[in-house]
Amino acid sequence: MTRIRFHQGLDDLREKMLGMSGMAEQAVDRAVRAYLNGDLSLAEEVYRSEHDINRTEKDIDELAFDLLAMQQPMAVDLRFILAVIKINADLERVGDQAVNIAQRTRSQPASDLPFDLPRMASLARTMVHQAIQAFVARDAELARTILGSDDAVDDINTEAHRTMQQAIQTQHAGAVAALDALLVARNLERVADHATNIAEDVIFWLQGADVRHGKDAQSGVAPH
Amino acid sequence: MTRIRFHQGLDDLREKMLGMSGMAEQAVDRAVRAYLNGDLSLAEEVYRSEHDINRTEKDIDELAFDLLAMQQPMAVDLRFILAVIKINADLERVGDQAVNIAQRTRSQPASDLPFDLPRMASLARTMVHQAIQAFVARDAELARTILGSDDAVDDINTEAHRTMQQAIQTQHAGAVAALDALLVARNLERVADHATNIAEDVIFWLQGADVRHGKDAQSGVAPH
Repeated sequence: MTRIRFHQGLDDLREKMLGMSGMAEQAVDRAVRAYLNGDLSLAEEVYRSEHDINRTEKDIDELAFDLLAMQQPMAVDLRFILAVIKINADLERVGDQAVNIAQRTRSQPASDLPFDLPRMASLARTMVHQAIQAFVARDAELARTILGSDDAVDDINTEAHRTMQQAIQTQHAGAVAALDALLVARNLERVADHATNIAEDVIFWLQGADVRHGKDAQSGVAPH
Repeated sequence: MTRIRFHQGLDDLREKMLGMSGMAEQAVDRAVRAYLNGDLSLAEEVYRSEHDINRTEKDIDELAFDLLAMQQPMAVDLRFILAVIKINADLERVGDQAVNIAQRTRSQPASDLPFDLPRMASLARTMVHQAIQAFVARDAELARTILGSDDAVDDINTEAHRTMQQAIQTQHAGAVAALDALLVARNLERVADHATNIAEDVIFWLQGADVRHGKDAQSGVAPH
């Protein structure tokens, strides 16, 4: 009976974490749109969502703690719970980055972007989404591909720095706007870093599970 | 006998985490000095230390996992281990910020800083140090004061943004240098955020322990 409650708890934990991930991804999406379109009311929505994200983070932590305290979890469940705790912290910080991006929103659309910020935003969001997909599908291969995507984001970030310095040196009229864009780029670069952390946690979880479960894992009987 | 090994394990975990904290604080200290003095070889040392920090982070995670798997920890020990896992992740990211700061080092000293970067660095480093002290001393009061210090860091960061925009708008010759300083300021602001996270983890740990231990905690019998 307790065992059943424990497994229901694990399912709850997964569900709550998916909800958390959805909120964090939506926050980034809205923040980037608010910045690009100069949509201050959308930026406000991002600020408001931070409260929900923070509350959900605490809920997940408490549930994870209760599950660990409830009974001696098997190693595979233990790794799952620890992965959730770490991924949860990364998702909360993705939400923080969204707030930082939203703070760059002005009352008019961002124009004359000196590098491909929309592509960078799309890459970073996709990385977060895929990292969570890898978690849900227990897919270490997918998690590994995410580690590679980080390079593309870093490249655009480097380009952002280069163009910003150029704008300053040539005393380009759009230098203040370029500064905003650079700061948003750095926030997106951190979103991508969090996605990378999540992917690493997924790999750590699955590898640990593989090591401990040997044939089971190979024959497709997935860890929790 | 197993119980003794478990408590030795908890002591090891605390020791390793103190070592981790020392490395992360040293990395920030060196990175800021490298940047301010234009000391490229000191910046190199920061890059090299990242490897040790990352390895120690993994060691701590594995030890924490083994302790959780070894036997059913009591609630107070469980909270301690979870606090270590979270603080560990924050310290690793403090190390990442140090690397980012070191990357701004040029072959000459940073000059004409348009805001008080050394003070900001000192505040951020002190916050990290005090957060870990609060952890070691089980001092929730000290942890709470850290939450307040974050405002001072944020204020300097805001000032950094203001002066940078001014430098661009007035086409000040030092605008490129001001950009470097701004980016370092943002890294320091994140170091302070991590210190704040650590302080919150300490409070969560101690409060949880208080709640579960009631009179013990009040009479000074500290949680683990």
